[in-house]
Amino acid sequence: MIVTDPGRTRRWGHIFRGDGRSLVLAMDHGATFGVGPPFDPEVLEPMIRSGVDAVLTTPAVAAACAPALASVGLLLRVDGGRTGLCENSGDDRSTLTTSVEAAARAGADAVTVMGYPGLADESNSLQRLGEVADRARGLGLLVMAEMVPYGFGASDRWSADVVARSARIGAELGADIIKTVVPKDGDIAHVCQSCPVPVMMLGGAAPLGDDGVAGLAEAARAAGAAGLAVGRNLWNAADPPSLIELVSTILHPE
Amino acid sequence: MIVTDPGRTRRWGHIFRGDGRSLVLAMDHGATFGVGPPFDPEVLEPMIRSGVDAVLTTPAVAAACAPALASVGLLLRVDGGRTGLCENSGDDRSTLTTSVEAAARAGADAVTVMGYPGLADESNSLQRLGEVADRARGLGLLVMAEMVPYGFGASDRWSADVVARSARIGAELGADIIKTVVPKDGDIAHVCQSCPVPVMMLGGAAPLGDDGVAGLAEAARAAGAAGLAVGRNLWNAADPPSLIELVSTILHPE
Amino acid sequence: MIVTDPGRTRRWGHIFRGDGRSLVLAMDHGATFGVGPPFDPEVLEPMIRSGVDAVLTTPAVAAACAPALASVGLLLRVDGGRTGLCENSGDDRSTLTTSVEAAARAGADAVTVMGYPGLADESNSLQRLGEVADRARGLGLLVMAEMVPYGFGASDRWSADVVARSARIGAELGADIIKTVVPKDGDIAHVCQSCPVPVMMLGGAAPLGDDGVAGLAEAARAAGAAGLAVGRNLWNAADPPSLIELVSTILHPE
Amino acid sequence: MIVTDPGRTRRWGHIFRGDGRSLVLAMDHGATFGVGPPFDPEVLEPMIRSGVDAVLTTPAVAAACAPALASVGLLLRVDGGRTGLCENSGDDRSTLTTSVEAAARAGADAVTVMGYPGLADESNSLQRLGEVADRARGLGLLVMAEMVPYGFGASDRWSADVVARSARIGAELGADIIKTVVPKDGDIAHVCQSCPVPVMMLGGAAPLGDDGVAGLAEAARAAGAAGLAVGRNLWNAADPPSLIELVSTILHPE
Amino acid sequence: MIVTDPGRTRRWGHIFRGDGRSLVLAMDHGATFGVGPPFDPEVLEPMIRSGVDAVLTTPAVAAACAPALASVGLLLRVDGGRTGLCENSGDDRSTLTTSVEAAARAGADAVTVMGYPGLADESNSLQRLGEVADRARGLGLLVMAEMVPYGFGASDRWSADVVARSARIGAELGADIIKTVVPKDGDIAHVCQSCPVPVMMLGGAAPLGDDGVAGLAEAARAAGAAGLAVGRNLWNAADPPSLIELVSTILHPE
Repeated sequence: MIVTDPGRTRRWGHIFRGDGRSLVLAMDHGATFGVGPPFDPEVLEPMIRSGVDAVLTTPAVAAACAPALASVGLLLRVDGGRTGLCENSGDDRSTLTTSVEAAARAGADAVTVMGYPGLADESNSLQRLGEVADRARGLGLLVMAEMVPYGFGASDRWSADVVARSARIGAELGADIIKTVVPKDGDIAHVCQSCPVPVMMLGGAAPLGDDGVAGLAEAARAAGAAGLAVGRNLWNAADPPSLIELVSTILHPE
Repeated sequence: MIVTDPGRTRRWGHIFRGDGRSLVLAMDHGATFGVGPPFDPEVLEPMIRSGVDAVLTTPAVAAACAPALASVGLLLRVDGGRTGLCENSGDDRSTLTTSVEAAARAGADAVTVMGYPGLADESNSLQRLGEVADRARGLGLLVMAEMVPYGFGASDRWSADVVARSARIGAELGADIIKTVVPKDGDIAHVCQSCPVPVMMLGGAAPLGDDGVAGLAEAARAAGAAGLAVGRNLWNAADPPSLIELVSTILHPE
Repeated sequence: MIVTDPGRTRRWGHIFRGDGRSLVLAMDHGATFGVGPPFDPEVLEPMIRSGVDAVLTTPAVAAACAPALASVGLLLRVDGGRTGLCENSGDDRSTLTTSVEAAARAGADAVTVMGYPGLADESNSLQRLGEVADRARGLGLLVMAEMVPYGFGASDRWSADVVARSARIGAELGADIIKTVVPKDGDIAHVCQSCPVPVMMLGGAAPLGDDGVAGLAEAARAAGAAGLAVGRNLWNAADPPSLIELVSTILHPE
Repeated sequence: MIVTDPGRTRRWGHIFRGDGRSLVLAMDHGATFGVGPPFDPEVLEPMIRSGVDAVLTTPAVAAACAPALASVGLLLRVDGGRTGLCENSGDDRSTLTTSVEAAARAGADAVTVMGYPGLADESNSLQRLGEVADRARGLGLLVMAEMVPYGFGASDRWSADVVARSARIGAELGADIIKTVVPKDGDIAHVCQSCPVPVMMLGGAAPLGDDGVAGLAEAARAAGAAGLAVGRNLWNAADPPSLIELVSTILHPE
Repeated sequence: MIVTDPGRTRRWGHIFRGDGRSLVLAMDHGATFGVGPPFDPEVLEPMIRSGVDAVLTTPAVAAACAPALASVGLLLRVDGGRTGLCENSGDDRSTLTTSVEAAARAGADAVTVMGYPGLADESNSLQRLGEVADRARGLGLLVMAEMVPYGFGASDRWSADVVARSARIGAELGADIIKTVVPKDGDIAHVCQSCPVPVMMLGGAAPLGDDGVAGLAEAARAAGAAGLAVGRNLWNAADPPSLIELVSTILHPE
């Protein structure tokens, strides 16, 4: 028999629909780039109402937009500490910038941290992941690991094998949900099959266009992924609510 | 300027709709009476889907029905320790039976405790309320106080003035939401106007019938109450989902 | 989706077989009566090998017989403090005599406490149950509540309704497993159906004889109980290993 | 296989000789009676040198005589708080007067507390014993429980059965060593056989004389007891070192 | 006399059979390599049923397969943080990735950490071992140290003397069980005789074939080792359950 973890089961239901998939709107860019996701509730609310299941953001955006975000799941990023104002040195310069306890107080359903397997200093991010997973479990929260092998600048090394192994490493270290990159050959299914927990595909910095985002959603669902966790490609779209509605329909066809 | 508490704001949005009202299904009777609310998800789910905004229950029911309850707000009762198997001595024999920390782990949006102003040992329940409110605030949770002046057997003393003063006492001691009795003269408006936080009306042991529950919902909305927190009169109805749908429509007309 | 509690799931599998039932040998009498269960490994081992699934005992017996008990599940009683040397005053004079933390260190799969609903001082035992359940959950342990309405001397009040309500009260306060008395009319099924967690039947002080114990096992399985938690009627039998083997076969027919 | 507790094994060897027996000189009377054991090292040292294996005393005597006591085992009493200046009410008015942590700092091998099964307020002392045992185990110390059924004034009720059951109750609650009274019929063997841990016989207030003490030592060894824990009958003797030497020879014949 | 540590004795009996040997299935590779051991209960269960005594794995696999693993001992790896996606720098880049407390909650019988004596930064892993041993002892858990002198790439330096000294160093720092490499001259007996705690032989990356694994089991038993802790050479076999059954028969001939 399986004994339920009631808090984590409840929070799972805040992020995922009954079909096991979720459309996560990523809004955690501001702490790194200083620009990015809207924090004006009047801009945000129509996006939320169009089919977002959960939002990944920072504690500050979650505070500024708390009423607008109450109807969707909340994943709070707890690492950071590097910015786009500093030249990218290629290594992991992240730290924990807030605590799992603070995320729990803020009503988060999950906390999110980066994992950079393959970097020379990979153990920094992987240890953070393990520690955060321990704390989160003790407080009833879920953990999303954003696994980016060799860092964000290394997309040429993102073979399906490397991405799959990275996803599994994240899960082995305690993540309940993996957010990761689309392998360069597009074999999302290999990633999902290699990983004991649900995998969500990220969008990235390159503009995909509405058709590209829709195609990513189709591919993710077809490959058995648990959905998308996309930011710039949604809130930078010409008509974010329309695109969100379209993607939600693709991820949740019934 | 008002500095918002983001976690409590978020949790507020899990319990109340935008109109400031909520239909709370009370399911916390089992720990006291040993009988009562259904804990079968197949019975519970149709009720939830018919318009319940939040559920007030015990940690055990919340655990048993975690997936079914994920779509609604969750208020967890943390006091108890007296049962219907013991003759009612008229005094407050309640204690804390679980902790605010455990409620937070279980994903509660609020914790609920009794308050018995007017009993000779009123300071027991009022001190519990104050302590629970302190802990809950530190963890980002809301507090509902169920204020029953002179105890449940004393309905003849529930004048509008007494109920109003009790409600305010609960709020003054740290409650964010008051659940209380309908005054014997029916003047709910006086109670709501006397109390700085939202007031929800409870149903009680006496069967009201479908019309009675609907009438209570009408009266509550008309008087400015924040809704109903009703148990036996909903889950003991002939057709609970239909009655819940009706009451929801009354409380949330738009 | 249900998120698993891995530690409590693992420990569940230490107590119950795949059929959801367990034969628990109760050996916790020594702390109360000063006589009782054997603590000689040479007496104990043949009993264990004959089909016991788990043992309920005190930390002292668990320490004295640690190697013999390693092959079965372990439930440790953490309350007590009253003895058979003192006249039974009819009220609950129990206290916690060891901690959940100590039980976890000793390798317990579950902790066991009494619950006495219906006693004038019922809130003592019920609060203990709630507190112990909180601690146990935080440490990954299970909780068995031994629910005895009105105390051990009140068997004439053990109607099926009273026992059923008591079992549910134990579950509502956080117990994962209920150990309780057979109702005086024998309606075990009513007890099991009223309770959201598995129910195990206790044997009690009266000698049942081998046939009586076998009959209790048959009745328990037929009524949907999760097995037996019996002490004196097993270790006082003429040939304990034979009786244990018989009862195990009844509880686990396949 | 048995995994050793190294600290408690080491401390065991400080109290008991290889034959499993010990002569414990009890010197814990001063805190209760305000008179009693010598605390002059010049008086104490000849006694110690004559064959004492361990001393049971209070932290104050242990401090005053630290150099003299360094060569023997040390058991520190951590309860008390009642005095001979107050009329004996017959109930347990003891409390913890120092902590297990303080005893550890003072170099104790064991801590000692009273247990009064059969008193109306028996749960006070039994809960203390359980708590002290938890703490002591965590700090690597041993626990001696001095089990006196119905209190010191009730020697007429000290049947072998009652004393045996009391000894076992002490062991079940966590004691590693039992110090108890000689049953009124002298059947020490029954007590030792009923108890899963070593039993030491106490001397009591009545003067036994040198022959009486020697006889007690003979009887204890013959019955399988782990030795004597005697105070007044040793340090009040005409020639304490001689008597101690005699008793030691009886307890440790080889 | 030896005073038992009851929790660690109980957990010892969960890992080792009465003959003092154990077949440990190593399944902790996924966190490092991102590929490896099956996490599908349907694949795992037949292996477990074929004679595995205990499993060494990560918390994630233990959670995913909790019901399947309930019948065997559980050793949880608590270090890691380096991956096969990163070029092996030859030094110890491991960290603690979870806590002993979390392992205890998850029902672990032992925690496992690496030890790399001979590396320039050997003190990292050796300090981790010492710290983990302290925490584990306080919580009643056992500690397995996987001692790999000069790291995994240095098999040419694995003389019997070096391996034996490494094993003893692990034991001296607090390990209860040593998992180590077969010396290049095959003198397992020298390793076992040099080490005060049981030694288990690991399999390593090179495929041994069924005969090779069987031969290793024979050699280990003959040399006085406590068994094998093998992963890839078992779960990558053509027919894992058959090979496991064979090895179990060799390790446990009676």
